[in-house]
Amino acid sequence: MQAFDPIAILGTGLLGGSIGLGLRAAGCAGRIVGFGRTQQTLAKARELGCIDEGFTDLAAAVRGCKLVVLATPVRAIPPLMEQLADVLPPDAVVTDVGSTKREICAAARQHLQHPERFVGAHPMAGSELHGPAHARADLFRGRLCILTPAGTNAQAEAVARVESLWQALGMTLTVKSPEEHDEMVAVISHLPHAVAVMLVELADRQKAMSVAATGFRDTTRIASGDPQVWLDIFTTNRDAILAAIDRFSEELGRFRSAVERCDEPAIRTLLEHAKAARDAWVENHEPRKMR
Amino acid sequence: MQAFDPIAILGTGLLGGSIGLGLRAAGCAGRIVGFGRTQQTLAKARELGCIDEGFTDLAAAVRGCKLVVLATPVRAIPPLMEQLADVLPPDAVVTDVGSTKREICAAARQHLQHPERFVGAHPMAGSELHGPAHARADLFRGRLCILTPAGTNAQAEAVARVESLWQALGMTLTVKSPEEHDEMVAVISHLPHAVAVMLVELADRQKAMSVAATGFRDTTRIASGDPQVWLDIFTTNRDAILAAIDRFSEELGRFRSAVERCDEPAIRTLLEHAKAARDAWVENHEPRKMR
Repeated sequence: MQAFDPIAILGTGLLGGSIGLGLRAAGCAGRIVGFGRTQQTLAKARELGCIDEGFTDLAAAVRGCKLVVLATPVRAIPPLMEQLADVLPPDAVVTDVGSTKREICAAARQHLQHPERFVGAHPMAGSELHGPAHARADLFRGRLCILTPAGTNAQAEAVARVESLWQALGMTLTVKSPEEHDEMVAVISHLPHAVAVMLVELADRQKAMSVAATGFRDTTRIASGDPQVWLDIFTTNRDAILAAIDRFSEELGRFRSAVERCDEPAIRTLLEHAKAARDAWVENHEPRKMR
Repeated sequence: MQAFDPIAILGTGLLGGSIGLGLRAAGCAGRIVGFGRTQQTLAKARELGCIDEGFTDLAAAVRGCKLVVLATPVRAIPPLMEQLADVLPPDAVVTDVGSTKREICAAARQHLQHPERFVGAHPMAGSELHGPAHARADLFRGRLCILTPAGTNAQAEAVARVESLWQALGMTLTVKSPEEHDEMVAVISHLPHAVAVMLVELADRQKAMSVAATGFRDTTRIASGDPQVWLDIFTTNRDAILAAIDRFSEELGRFRSAVERCDEPAIRTLLEHAKAARDAWVENHEPRKMR
């Protein structure tokens, strides 16, 4: 607990709020300080039990903190780092929750006095709902957290402190370079988001949504996500996302061509292979919840 | 209850089994007869309470039945109709659960002695799971059922009998022509299925699935569906599916181009519009369950 007492959470929305609730539920919270743009959000977060105390002043929020978590949308993180540079306690360790990691690690190297005390993190948990009202103590439990220490040449002691945070929230850890991270999540998160958005667009345009059912609901769930959060992702992982869209278009073209030729063995192979790959993944990743 | 007592369910998998369970739970089942290829499936369906009696002989199964439900994969329906022609009681009404409707209605016109007593139906309910073991009494409750009576010039009395079945299962009814139906479901169901399958293919190929989370899980859920069921769909709604894939590729191209240009207002508009359209749909269609 010593490792992150007190802790400052900058941004008390769905993710920041859930960190506070999760630490408390795990019984390993010390003092939890929140930072936000308005007193109103902070009051809400306090009322919900996400934080003990809230500040709209950054220096006041991080004073004496051992761990600082940047939990704002991705593009708000570099300016926050710039402001942090002057007020961060020298022994504080910093982590974040951003969905893209190259730009954030580059900003840490550029703005922080001790980038080696920043350990980039991407907790693979979330919801299409947002705001502290949807925060949940178990949001992170059983999920994967990707750490990118190589992006800032992070010190072992800083990494250990950040690991202890995400582990306290029940997460499994894995380490990737910022580049690997951005490419992989482009494929399994950013591309699916773009696809879901355009499936809704097409269904709306073709006036077909009136007959849509649970398959459509689930396939497009993420399209109900916060536009600001996703705008930040699409603008900070541009090249990896373009590459993923292009590869996906090729794959879809393969499927289209099999359907056009009425090539039953080819269609069957694609359907069976995808089912096998997904079923194996569901089986290996959290058999209890992944169904 | 008179309207469908006794009822014959041809094919006692997820859908057929759920019809039996649903009728029983609604307290409006008379005798429920099952037809299947093997004694083993039928024994399983009987054991689970989906049917009262099972036959592997079609004539024995439909003898004296007022309503016959074709609940096999799509392409098994036309051959079943051919066999039914000789054994169907003259006053029986026939319906089905097929996900494509043009070919099925055409088969009814070709094979049945009284196509006007066939009312095509597509209950918009299902699961990526299959087999009678996953049948649920509430599978259809609160969902939409699309009827295509125009496809067979169905008699008013036959339509009324079929309506009473789906309504007894708790479904809301809507009427479309087979052509309208096939176009609409190509957009909201068959295209999303193809997309989900190819998202899994790409993630598997790029070795990115190890970091996938709940967004990926939901976006690709339908890719775990029964390959046989989907092979039948992709081969019997070919032109509508190709058109939907082409329109979708154009939409995805629009998104890609906005990302490539870093055109923030354009990306934001797409994200916001899709969110608004989906949120409105969720709000209007079953506010309790659709989240």
